Amino acid sequence: MSASLPRLAITMGDPAGVGPEVCLHLLGNADMAALCSPVVFGDAAVLQACAQKTALPFHTPVLSPRQWENAWSTLQTPAVLDLGAITLEAFQPGTINAATGRAGYTYVNKAIDAALAGQVAAVSTAPLNKEAMSLAGIKFPGHTEIFATRTNAIRSCMMQYSEEITCTFVTVHVGYRDVPSLLTKERILDVIELTAAGLERIRRRKPKLVVCGLNPHAGEHGLFGDREEERIIIPAIEAARAKGIEIEGPLPPDTAFLPWKRKSTDAFVCMYHDQGHIPVKALAFDSAVNTTLGLPIIRTSVDHGTALDIAWQGKARPDSLYSAVRLAVQLADVKAK
Amino acid sequence: MSASLPRLAITMGDPAGVGPEVCLHLLGNADMAALCSPVVFGDAAVLQACAQKTALPFHTPVLSPRQWENAWSTLQTPAVLDLGAITLEAFQPGTINAATGRAGYTYVNKAIDAALAGQVAAVSTAPLNKEAMSLAGIKFPGHTEIFATRTNAIRSCMMQYSEEITCTFVTVHVGYRDVPSLLTKERILDVIELTAAGLERIRRRKPKLVVCGLNPHAGEHGLFGDREEERIIIPAIEAARAKGIEIEGPLPPDTAFLPWKRKSTDAFVCMYHDQGHIPVKALAFDSAVNTTLGLPIIRTSVDHGTALDIAWQGKARPDSLYSAVRLAVQLADVKAK
Repeated sequence: MSASLPRLAITMGDPAGVGPEVCLHLLGNADMAALCSPVVFGDAAVLQACAQKTALPFHTPVLSPRQWENAWSTLQTPAVLDLGAITLEAFQPGTINAATGRAGYTYVNKAIDAALAGQVAAVSTAPLNKEAMSLAGIKFPGHTEIFATRTNAIRSCMMQYSEEITCTFVTVHVGYRDVPSLLTKERILDVIELTAAGLERIRRRKPKLVVCGLNPHAGEHGLFGDREEERIIIPAIEAARAKGIEIEGPLPPDTAFLPWKRKSTDAFVCMYHDQGHIPVKALAFDSAVNTTLGLPIIRTSVDHGTALDIAWQGKARPDSLYSAVRLAVQLADVKAK
Repeated sequence: MSASLPRLAITMGDPAGVGPEVCLHLLGNADMAALCSPVVFGDAAVLQACAQKTALPFHTPVLSPRQWENAWSTLQTPAVLDLGAITLEAFQPGTINAATGRAGYTYVNKAIDAALAGQVAAVSTAPLNKEAMSLAGIKFPGHTEIFATRTNAIRSCMMQYSEEITCTFVTVHVGYRDVPSLLTKERILDVIELTAAGLERIRRRKPKLVVCGLNPHAGEHGLFGDREEERIIIPAIEAARAKGIEIEGPLPPDTAFLPWKRKSTDAFVCMYHDQGHIPVKALAFDSAVNTTLGLPIIRTSVDHGTALDIAWQGKARPDSLYSAVRLAVQLADVKAK
């Protein structure tokens, strides 16, 4: 008796970026097919053209939306759901334009629909291009915000997960100067709680968390900054401790990520995008997975962008997408239990 | 015929921190004694007490200020210059107080005097404690600012140097929210020029530099932030290029430090403290050296703080101080030529 494989929606990402080729890698990978039934939500003509350009194989069955509606519940193999969101004439690989921004956004929305309808156990996403989406009039700065809005999540946060280092984020896609005004005790406590719950699901034990300060040296007791640590971050940490969460901080952001500290910490709660993205990319550049905590559905993502400069050249590595799929399967498995 | 060794002033740092014990390691290290004549600017009684507490040897000749004035020019071995800045009764190791803040500051000032007088070829500094200095009424946030002020440097900047990654800083010891208002085209160009000149001295060839953006994704062409990249950073880069400096940017701060980018980059010009300190500490935690570019004297420093939680326990590693001494000798050698 063989257990059934979880079905995963894999969004193809911006057609002009590296999304199509990392999806082609995935569709041809036996390890991935043994782990799940991956369904690429994208355009078959784009995948076909990209396969020819990059000399990657492409022999996966293609389903129309109607075929998908009839067959999804029995699907146990890799497949492509052909959404017809863009034509090959509408774009040049490696360039930014509104058409690819809109198409990438369409794949994500269809995948969210499928997850909310219970057709797939999780969604793993290839990269969108924020500038292309902006040209298409789509105001979301990233996947995290699209998923949060579409699923009516009351609270959610981004997590970058890897075996080497895991970070969650109080703020993400906002300008440097906008961060301080977005820090509140309530938001930080939300992110701490989401982090604790998420890591407990992954580790299957109570996790140890660290919170980073905002200022250099975590403000050094008020010497730098506007006492954000004392006024906002420490009260949030104390409230989290009162709820039984094992948590340390606020630590100076530069020493928080020292090797021995990383070993004893399950996740770092970061105040802003680059505070956590810099060490994650420096230390786990091809294995980190992006996920959104707090959603009613499971969502993981590659840790890289569209990489337009190498798109459609056969140079893109699928490691990050594979890691995203593995974490999605792991989380789906826990959720099912 | 043996060449004479360069004399280095080594400041003992805050007496309550790990400074005294890393200096004891240095004074007993044969490799260091073969490289230079290190003179610890500190308090002999503190070193003696710390040696007993940590079971480290201490057999180095101690000079009074008067003996130093008479003998400095012929000194070719390790020595301690006993400045009598603090008594053992005045402090507890591992704690913050005004007396140790003042003593640490005294050692630095005496070392700067010695460097300006040509008595030593360079200064390598053990860590000060900013809170202790603040309690003593000393307003400087760190060594960089003390050296810049005392030597009347017209322009200077901090550099963190290691074989793995090297960063220089447009702003350093200021609160997170104060950074944007301190970024000007002129200051960024100054730091780029200082970085190019400093790295050319170390590498003995024209260096390749990278400048980081301020905002996530370097603003993604204005999507995040206040277009600091377009308004301030890019004009500085263009001005540097017009002066013949090989420089790329502004790069997204998180992808700037990817492994392959680090390999092809001699130094990263960073906009704020944690943008560069996070990757330096994560990647080169015990080998990075802090130095100040643009001074009339050579100054290098350990890359760690006073580490009060492990001070006087024999746990502190001297690697960073050894790296600081090596870089100081290297820079002194080039300067002499």
